[in-house]
Amino acid sequence: MLKKERFEAFTDAVIAIILTILVLELKLPGNDHSIHALIKILPKFAAYIMTFIFIATMWVNHHFLFSQAKGITNQIIWTNFVWLFIASLLPATTAWLGSDIFARTSAILYVINVVLFNLATLLLRRQVTSKNNLNNMQNLSRKEHISMAVNLLTLVVTWFFPPFPLCWTHYQHHSLVASSY
Amino acid sequence: MLKKERFEAFTDAVIAIILTILVLELKLPGNDHSIHALIKILPKFAAYIMTFIFIATMWVNHHFLFSQAKGITNQIIWTNFVWLFIASLLPATTAWLGSDIFARTSAILYVINVVLFNLATLLLRRQVTSKNNLNNMQNLSRKEHISMAVNLLTLVVTWFFPPFPLCWTHYQHHSLVASSY
Amino acid sequence: MLKKERFEAFTDAVIAIILTILVLELKLPGNDHSIHALIKILPKFAAYIMTFIFIATMWVNHHFLFSQAKGITNQIIWTNFVWLFIASLLPATTAWLGSDIFARTSAILYVINVVLFNLATLLLRRQVTSKNNLNNMQNLSRKEHISMAVNLLTLVVTWFFPPFPLCWTHYQHHSLVASSY
Amino acid sequence: MLKKERFEAFTDAVIAIILTILVLELKLPGNDHSIHALIKILPKFAAYIMTFIFIATMWVNHHFLFSQAKGITNQIIWTNFVWLFIASLLPATTAWLGSDIFARTSAILYVINVVLFNLATLLLRRQVTSKNNLNNMQNLSRKEHISMAVNLLTLVVTWFFPPFPLCWTHYQHHSLVASSY
Repeated sequence: MLKKERFEAFTDAVIAIILTILVLELKLPGNDHSIHALIKILPKFAAYIMTFIFIATMWVNHHFLFSQAKGITNQIIWTNFVWLFIASLLPATTAWLGSDIFARTSAILYVINVVLFNLATLLLRRQVTSKNNLNNMQNLSRKEHISMAVNLLTLVVTWFFPPFPLCWTHYQHHSLVASSY
Repeated sequence: MLKKERFEAFTDAVIAIILTILVLELKLPGNDHSIHALIKILPKFAAYIMTFIFIATMWVNHHFLFSQAKGITNQIIWTNFVWLFIASLLPATTAWLGSDIFARTSAILYVINVVLFNLATLLLRRQVTSKNNLNNMQNLSRKEHISMAVNLLTLVVTWFFPPFPLCWTHYQHHSLVASSY
Repeated sequence: MLKKERFEAFTDAVIAIILTILVLELKLPGNDHSIHALIKILPKFAAYIMTFIFIATMWVNHHFLFSQAKGITNQIIWTNFVWLFIASLLPATTAWLGSDIFARTSAILYVINVVLFNLATLLLRRQVTSKNNLNNMQNLSRKEHISMAVNLLTLVVTWFFPPFPLCWTHYQHHSLVASSY
Repeated sequence: MLKKERFEAFTDAVIAIILTILVLELKLPGNDHSIHALIKILPKFAAYIMTFIFIATMWVNHHFLFSQAKGITNQIIWTNFVWLFIASLLPATTAWLGSDIFARTSAILYVINVVLFNLATLLLRRQVTSKNNLNNMQNLSRKEHISMAVNLLTLVVTWFFPPFPLCWTHYQHHSLVASSY
């Protein structure tokens, strides 16, 4: 009754738009065509790369998860909307982080956004695996606990050193991709 | 002759873009990285959440409705375009509502936008059910009458207390999802 | 070799985005929540409705045309890109028209944009019908000649009365939908 | 396990959005409706056409390449994300180029962006052909070497004559399309 293909295509369209809206922040000044204008947006560019990698990783996870799912329940659709909602906030929090990488509030907000997205992915995976009896994914729980511990640690470090998220996603990337197989 | 898949995919693309354009309003100031900047956009954020839930609900309804439909007529395509047109106004009316939640004109405009979207959904459902002989959906008419009464009541309450729409969508959400099954 | 489905899906995504980008122009002022702010954007709103109907019509035409096509040639792909390119200019020309409906240059530019889109649709239809031997579409040529005559007349009238395009699309809508069957 | 269709649809959605975001730069002034306003944005318009043709060409290449592919590996997905990332920078670099076509830094940056996109396409093609044993594509290597030589020459010429990229993409277009068959 619920078509998996339409559900996946809709999710992909939203993720594709979020991914591309990010780049709207990378505005180069129309009245300054020097190399300094480029250097000035480097922090924004770094924040953009990070979030791009992060969303790409999450899309790959989503792709793997649902390629094994047979049925989509109403509960999964709404958890997926929560997942999309949290993802849709990333362009705003990324832009705020990039506009001053040494500010604490924006750095903490960005990390909270990423952590919430991780939690939503975790919830989505639980629901899909339990509804589809995917036993081979149950042994991920240990990896997930490590991932959550890393997330909390990141929050603490970011409090004392705000630019920390810019070094952080690369680790997250490997940890999350790894946990998909 | 008319392909349901292409029709659905196009509708989904438009809805996905509307959903994501909403977030473009959530701009955090580049020169203020304090907690106050966050508090300042809370009304916009509340308006964003509401419209996000509302559009998500409507997409789920659309999904359910057309999963049961076999044929798409020319009339259904054009009613669907009216439906998409009204939906496409939501980012603008949501942004206006969010910029001052105590203003009456913007609150009324927002509620009118939502009511029109409800009416268009109702019209679309009538056309699809009658063309596809979906009898099991006919018993929705009582629920729809209640929903419309709630809508009109909301209009009246919003006139006297403009921030009312911010408390209102949650009810709408349940009423609309419920009416799909 | 060339997959019609991927070609159609890509075209639909571009058209869906163009349709939705249009609405970004409909910005209501954050510091004026009176009914006057609404009245002020009425010309923009009228221009938006027109272009929305126009693009919707063209999408329906595209849908019908390719639902009958079996093969996609390289030539059709590139004519389709020209078609998409001209469509992609509509948000900019619509916004310019809407910002002052009594200005001549912007009204003429808008009509030229619409005429070019019509011509591209005509070219696309010719190529698809000739490559797929769709004879039942050949009797459209007379209707197309009338449509082109109307277009040229519109250009002349717009020169003397710039707001004319705002009354004009409704006719165009019927003429174009009619010519698809 | 990895579905080619979902992978292609996601790529198409991102490319479609990038293609359409480009046009957001083509803003006509709301307070000047003369022919001079049109002439003023001609350099931006030229830059827009160029990048539109370039991205369209790359999409056609992508379409042809993956229409012959049977399997998608994890490596291909990530190379494709690099490809999409470089493409997502084109709206920003195109806008910078268009805002002053005689500035050297922005012209060089644009050419670097295009060259990186070409390199990513080349890498993607290598991976897809080697994983799918597509021998008939191996004889492209000579054409690719010529294409790269042209790219490097363009970089040198742009250094001395910044508006050069505006004459250049047309050649690139033919060279790249030709190399797909």
